[in-house]
Amino acid sequence: MAYEGEPLHTVLRSPGKEVVIGHDQRFCLIGERINPTGRKIFQEQLRAGDLSAIERDVKAQVEGGADVLDVNMGVPLTDEPELLAKAIQLVQTLTDLPICIDSSVVEALEAGLSVYQGRALVNSITAEDERMAQILPLVKKYDAAIIALPNDEDEIPMEADKRLVLTEKIIRVATEEYGIAKADIVIDPLAMPIGADTSTALVTMETMRRIRDEFGVNMTCGASNTSFGMPDRHTLGAAWLPMAMTQGLTCAIMDARTPQIVEAVKAADVFMNHDDWGMAWISAHRAKAAATA
Amino acid sequence: MAYEGEPLHTVLRSPGKEVVIGHDQRFCLIGERINPTGRKIFQEQLRAGDLSAIERDVKAQVEGGADVLDVNMGVPLTDEPELLAKAIQLVQTLTDLPICIDSSVVEALEAGLSVYQGRALVNSITAEDERMAQILPLVKKYDAAIIALPNDEDEIPMEADKRLVLTEKIIRVATEEYGIAKADIVIDPLAMPIGADTSTALVTMETMRRIRDEFGVNMTCGASNTSFGMPDRHTLGAAWLPMAMTQGLTCAIMDARTPQIVEAVKAADVFMNHDDWGMAWISAHRAKAAATA
Repeated sequence: MAYEGEPLHTVLRSPGKEVVIGHDQRFCLIGERINPTGRKIFQEQLRAGDLSAIERDVKAQVEGGADVLDVNMGVPLTDEPELLAKAIQLVQTLTDLPICIDSSVVEALEAGLSVYQGRALVNSITAEDERMAQILPLVKKYDAAIIALPNDEDEIPMEADKRLVLTEKIIRVATEEYGIAKADIVIDPLAMPIGADTSTALVTMETMRRIRDEFGVNMTCGASNTSFGMPDRHTLGAAWLPMAMTQGLTCAIMDARTPQIVEAVKAADVFMNHDDWGMAWISAHRAKAAATA
Repeated sequence: MAYEGEPLHTVLRSPGKEVVIGHDQRFCLIGERINPTGRKIFQEQLRAGDLSAIERDVKAQVEGGADVLDVNMGVPLTDEPELLAKAIQLVQTLTDLPICIDSSVVEALEAGLSVYQGRALVNSITAEDERMAQILPLVKKYDAAIIALPNDEDEIPMEADKRLVLTEKIIRVATEEYGIAKADIVIDPLAMPIGADTSTALVTMETMRRIRDEFGVNMTCGASNTSFGMPDRHTLGAAWLPMAMTQGLTCAIMDARTPQIVEAVKAADVFMNHDDWGMAWISAHRAKAAATA
């Protein structure tokens, strides 16, 4: 069954800004760096209550061209709900970009949602019943949008068919049981590292194409996952996102500090006819030329 | 009607080398620089019988990673058949890459084919009956492969439907009337400049996808055409080719001296699962690291 309605729009808001994710929109960059995972010094600072490093990270992502900021405060041995709420309040004083509230801890997601000013994206649920039952009521209560991964308690499925089945389940449960709009469900089709298996990107692309054609929902991915373990990761990322965009990817969680990847996405927007007359492309070029003149 | 046979292989040869173009093969780079179009000094040299500049151009394309070399000697007020034959003989002393013999002059194509050692690609025919009647017998006689553009005397069609109709005509005439194998027909689906119309790339991608799915033939394009008139053309080219590869493009006529575009294609090969275990990607990285160490 092919999706034949109008393009679905995932609308995110801050007090001063609205961002629309859609198959007829420019690609949406979700800046990913406000996250202590793998950053020891940052973790220690956060554990000591020092959130000052966040300011620098927010600045870098905004300057790099992020449209939305992912905020994750997963630091072991801290009160993550309290820390995430504080971080979100701080980030909202620094920028008017909408926020993607990112945690594996349900209480942290709720704490973040309760203080967030605007309409947030929540990262994330899977097709696991328990996780959906915990998080989808919060998404509904706070009128947010949700990133969902088509895996369940059994496995991360390696075939497109199974990912489609789980995507259908998530959409059905979220819309029918929790009253969430289809436009507010953003599927992450599970882009796996090609370093482990070079056939995996073809499966991901097939999954994306079929999710776009059958359900019409928006899709995101962790842009750097695919190149994990390989050399020249920026060049791989700069090829991957334009390829994935042709298959229906409409946003990505990525480090906006990498101009090579950001510019590849902007170039792909021109070819996808999401940059009328190429004006954004031409203006960016002029601004860059003026800055280096 | 979907194409369901084995992947079609366009096989090109020089005395020392074989290159296979196919949907299951690594992308084939056809180096485009051995061409005096728009190069005044080069034109004057050629007019005076001085072919020495060709040596430098061949070297640059080979070093840049070309798999095949396009050779065009379209200089006004010269004996093009004689010049093209000489140039091809010279290029074959300089490299063992197969050659794409490029001319709008039928006699020049024949002169080139008659001296070429190996199995050449001929550039090009259209769906015009006269052009097919002149060139396809030569392609058959010299056992070459042919690039064909789906436009006719009326127009360059802007809709995918019309391009598909003309592609079908070319394939039918070439195979049924001239006995040329389908595997030896390489369609150029007509990638137009996005600077003139930003919806044109979507039409080209649809055309590619449908030609791949319905006929299974190989496809090429002039890689730099799409970015004509726009700033930052290399970044556009580096996004365009990976996108087009997902739609069925299997080779391109391009300037191999642009590492950004060549590397984008190699990265896309990894995601298309045309680089087993990513070994070519990893080896190239190691070679580069060793060269700069």
